[in-house]
Amino acid sequence: MISAPALPATQVDPSALSEAWVEHCAQALSIVRSASPLVQCLTNHVVSGFSANVLLALGASPAMVDIPVEAGRFAQLASAVLINLGTLAGEQPTAMREAARAASSNGVPWVLDPVAVGALPIRTALAHELLALHPSIVRGNPSEVMALAGSGPGGRGADSAAAVDDARAAAAELCPRSCDTVAVSGAIDLITDGRFTIRVHNSLPMLESLTGAGCSLGAVMAAYVGAGLPPISAATAATCTFTIAAERAGRQSHGPGSLAPALLDELAAVQPDDIRAHARLEVAAS
Amino acid sequence: MISAPALPATQVDPSALSEAWVEHCAQALSIVRSASPLVQCLTNHVVSGFSANVLLALGASPAMVDIPVEAGRFAQLASAVLINLGTLAGEQPTAMREAARAASSNGVPWVLDPVAVGALPIRTALAHELLALHPSIVRGNPSEVMALAGSGPGGRGADSAAAVDDARAAAAELCPRSCDTVAVSGAIDLITDGRFTIRVHNSLPMLESLTGAGCSLGAVMAAYVGAGLPPISAATAATCTFTIAAERAGRQSHGPGSLAPALLDELAAVQPDDIRAHARLEVAAS
Amino acid sequence: MISAPALPATQVDPSALSEAWVEHCAQALSIVRSASPLVQCLTNHVVSGFSANVLLALGASPAMVDIPVEAGRFAQLASAVLINLGTLAGEQPTAMREAARAASSNGVPWVLDPVAVGALPIRTALAHELLALHPSIVRGNPSEVMALAGSGPGGRGADSAAAVDDARAAAAELCPRSCDTVAVSGAIDLITDGRFTIRVHNSLPMLESLTGAGCSLGAVMAAYVGAGLPPISAATAATCTFTIAAERAGRQSHGPGSLAPALLDELAAVQPDDIRAHARLEVAAS
Repeated sequence: MISAPALPATQVDPSALSEAWVEHCAQALSIVRSASPLVQCLTNHVVSGFSANVLLALGASPAMVDIPVEAGRFAQLASAVLINLGTLAGEQPTAMREAARAASSNGVPWVLDPVAVGALPIRTALAHELLALHPSIVRGNPSEVMALAGSGPGGRGADSAAAVDDARAAAAELCPRSCDTVAVSGAIDLITDGRFTIRVHNSLPMLESLTGAGCSLGAVMAAYVGAGLPPISAATAATCTFTIAAERAGRQSHGPGSLAPALLDELAAVQPDDIRAHARLEVAAS
Repeated sequence: MISAPALPATQVDPSALSEAWVEHCAQALSIVRSASPLVQCLTNHVVSGFSANVLLALGASPAMVDIPVEAGRFAQLASAVLINLGTLAGEQPTAMREAARAASSNGVPWVLDPVAVGALPIRTALAHELLALHPSIVRGNPSEVMALAGSGPGGRGADSAAAVDDARAAAAELCPRSCDTVAVSGAIDLITDGRFTIRVHNSLPMLESLTGAGCSLGAVMAAYVGAGLPPISAATAATCTFTIAAERAGRQSHGPGSLAPALLDELAAVQPDDIRAHARLEVAAS
Repeated sequence: MISAPALPATQVDPSALSEAWVEHCAQALSIVRSASPLVQCLTNHVVSGFSANVLLALGASPAMVDIPVEAGRFAQLASAVLINLGTLAGEQPTAMREAARAASSNGVPWVLDPVAVGALPIRTALAHELLALHPSIVRGNPSEVMALAGSGPGGRGADSAAAVDDARAAAAELCPRSCDTVAVSGAIDLITDGRFTIRVHNSLPMLESLTGAGCSLGAVMAAYVGAGLPPISAATAATCTFTIAAERAGRQSHGPGSLAPALLDELAAVQPDDIRAHARLEVAAS
């Protein structure tokens, strides 16, 4: 495992800190590619195919093992686990509990994506139950993060009304108490572990017209944390890589349909030097 | 809500009536884009991702909430609901009953897509049960519409042997008794509410090689009816928009693979003036 | 049904035998296109949409009927059945047992794809249970085929560590005792029915970055066997067609994202003469 850049003990030039993080993210891309982490996904049926393709494009190895008995057993062997509450059909919640428990017990890092939590009863209860098992990363929209922290009513699905900065206090409340890192997705992504607050300014508005963009970003975070990176580094590097690939894809796309294959092509093509050249991070002590 | 063009009390120039409907469909596109309706989809796992992307491309907001307890609750908040019987795994039928009941009780418009009804027992029984809750729109292939009306043996899946015109009598039998509008998909689409019979001559044969084309057309109808359009207007405008986008996409595609992203791009790009220029409607009093 | 080229009674020029098989595969493509076989798929939710599109592009007619009661009934009417163990949610295993039994009892050919068998308990037990119903074709990665034959620990999902040739003995053990033909997928595909051992040298490494490539190859085998071809012919012709289309698609792709639509376009475009020109088969008596 490589460590995240140390938080300076005293005042530091903010741009030097951001530059250190950009370099950290660039190196993280090489690490995830050579580790080829095995990422177990328990995710919704709307995005399972796209999420698997996102992981493959990045160089990770997806395994969509999401039924009881198998899920817990597999989680012990996986590099990381993604649990996304998008569609909780049948016994998938049981499989999610098993996988989260097995991951937590065996030191396997895992990501919780609490889709539409707050707005709907079953997923809200399950999200809180899973949160008690302390995920490495919680990734969500502002309204989802606020609902999880008990400070908002939740969203209406993948859509999110609250702005990212509104979720900052909620994120700070969640970690490190309930998870190691919170990643709030939006036009500007906000990532915090209680020590650092990092804003990723790379983004592509058209991603909102592509189903599974946020969900597969959660999978990419699982890949990075499964490659041995600390949660705050994994969430930041995943967001950088994904949004830089998306920006490049957007320039070649004619709309949201051609964006999806272009995004996969760019995730496969993006190099550490692209991160160095294009990442726009703003890093501060929390 | 805007109203559908009035049925003329006396003889009218048929081409004037068709022109009024083309203009109505063009305006409907602006309405659906600015309303950004929240469309709850209970649909099959084969097409859920594509259907969500179709709705996003159009400017609607998809929410694939399809489990019991959540489905009924969400249907009260949704702009419209789509119920597609393609794959009825686990408790999805229970969720569909809940959603249809909640939609009917709360005045939320909903679309029933009775995939392969007639040919298979479970979906046939469920389709009739749901039909008793009076959907706003029934969308199906000729054989499905005929089977639902009790006048044919049903199809063998998404495939349909019967010609669209064969289903005309069945459609007339179903509405307004069992639903407000029936939309029969085929080389020529036939849409009727018992007062108007509308034929949409726009079409793209290659759509038959794209899974989920018909299913996602049902989702688009839900978006239009969720934006406040009357069912007959919603079904007609949705079909116009979808097939005109498909015709444009077809001209840029090299086969059924490149058709899918091109169709999404064109659904995002199509404008009311494209409807005005290219819609080929034939409207008659039923 | 057309027969596979006869195994020569005495020594024969190996290249003449391979040429006879290439011609056989070229003719098989015409046969599958004109038969338009109805292929029932009980497959995983990650690849169901892509598999349906692959079948449609080829000219077959997919039907994803995978719930109990309907699955067994439909299997009696289908041209062929694909059973893929990728994600065994809810009652899908029950539907798979029904479909396999109905297919076996009614002489409907069927393909078993034992995804990740060996590594995980539920699918391993189910795979052996289904194998007792004698599928026409077993398609898998080397580690899956070895695990099914009891000679290896199995893989970790779609990924496979063992080389294709390592699985040769396992394949020979499985057929004709447990199935008619075994197809082992890899950089070189190995197909055997105990009489012939056929190696297909066409391949595209980038297929490993596309989820559902192997799964949809299983669906294509079902289409060929459903068109009336003997299992060894179906597996070989399906592999030829799929990999030649992939090779062509690879030349037009910028990465794994643009590969998927290009592969579908090429599956729709590939002609018997392309098989004649590009198939690289190595055929030997087992």
